[in-house]
Amino acid sequence: MICLGIESAGKTAGVAIWKEDEPLYEATLSAGFTHSESLLEMIQTALTAARLTAADIDLWAVCAGPGSFTGLRIGLALVKGLTFATGAPCVGVSTLEALAWCAGPAATVVPALDARRGQVYAAAFQAGQSPRRLLEDAARDPASLADFVESCKKPLVFVGDGAEICYNRYKDVPGVARLPGFLAASRAAGVCLAAMEQARQGNTQSGEQLRPQYLRLSQAERERAEKLAAKPQ
Amino acid sequence: MICLGIESAGKTAGVAIWKEDEPLYEATLSAGFTHSESLLEMIQTALTAARLTAADIDLWAVCAGPGSFTGLRIGLALVKGLTFATGAPCVGVSTLEALAWCAGPAATVVPALDARRGQVYAAAFQAGQSPRRLLEDAARDPASLADFVESCKKPLVFVGDGAEICYNRYKDVPGVARLPGFLAASRAAGVCLAAMEQARQGNTQSGEQLRPQYLRLSQAERERAEKLAAKPQ
Repeated sequence: MICLGIESAGKTAGVAIWKEDEPLYEATLSAGFTHSESLLEMIQTALTAARLTAADIDLWAVCAGPGSFTGLRIGLALVKGLTFATGAPCVGVSTLEALAWCAGPAATVVPALDARRGQVYAAAFQAGQSPRRLLEDAARDPASLADFVESCKKPLVFVGDGAEICYNRYKDVPGVARLPGFLAASRAAGVCLAAMEQARQGNTQSGEQLRPQYLRLSQAERERAEKLAAKPQ
Repeated sequence: MICLGIESAGKTAGVAIWKEDEPLYEATLSAGFTHSESLLEMIQTALTAARLTAADIDLWAVCAGPGSFTGLRIGLALVKGLTFATGAPCVGVSTLEALAWCAGPAATVVPALDARRGQVYAAAFQAGQSPRRLLEDAARDPASLADFVESCKKPLVFVGDGAEICYNRYKDVPGVARLPGFLAASRAAGVCLAAMEQARQGNTQSGEQLRPQYLRLSQAERERAEKLAAKPQ
């Protein structure tokens, strides 16, 4: 199985190609350009570098969320187009699960993305050859993780661009660490690994079935709801 | 400071561009092609993706060794050419130190590369914001690390493509772990980080001064020496 995975949920655009359990290629761009400018070219470059064409890809993988609303839409739209053109299946993976696949040695992994407004998108996984889910993806107040952080198996490692926020809150708990800076960032390798595991379990989709997992209302939807609620009846 | 780093010491070809403490771009190719076919194109792609030209690079960085004799030669020759053409300085960094910069949270990092013939190229670093060297780069029998592994500060993490060899020998020592599979591989990000630290300390070179650090004789040199030694005087 050859899998091409795309990461566009955050500021970083990532593309990786894996063949079974081996990485063939991975590229990560975080120079501040929009994913709509960069991603398709990065996919073309990845295929060229690995001496493949789109027709060689058995599985297209993409972060379905949580993450930036626009970033997710760009990645999903690209994969919808690519699966439509090639007929190959796809998998939309959790951005947080993709992070858990790249966390390294630990007993417990808590991937966290900065969701602004005092929240993180966070989940938890038991580490191992394939991460086993302990907490569902949700927008959470970092303080709400207190019971879990205290009682879970250690060492616990925070990853993702919300790792620092969580670590600063729980660094005095013995056995708690975080991946620093660039090592904590989302990688398309994790998208491939999470997607190939789903495919092994028979959970693939067509591009049409692919849906974003936003977990929260967008800013525009939230503001509209607030406005409607405030309006006198 | 904008630094472009090249990793060609092993099977993986890598190129990264960092601006001060932030990654702009990184690509890693391990699809089995020779570095002489891939590396220059990867550099071109990296510059294009980051909207830069060779003239924008303030510091060229490359793994000087240990590692594959041919791989190192290709990386060094490229950087010699690039610094000659652009006039910018370069740094040749230890492949093992570059690995240490990407090891994640631990107290001690032991980067190890499979050197064949029962040996690893290995060193040791105290982990931290910038790794502090504890053992010099050397070709070592993994067994010779026993005293160090027993007495060093834990947790200790093995990284590099020799991590598994070392881990299998010392996994019963409490606090010893290794980065698994693709996370243990050399990254051009580590080459940039190690080189920028050298540059901050004023240790840059011209391309002419750049030399490989092989640590052992090449197979051809070794066999010639054995033949000469066996010859009756």
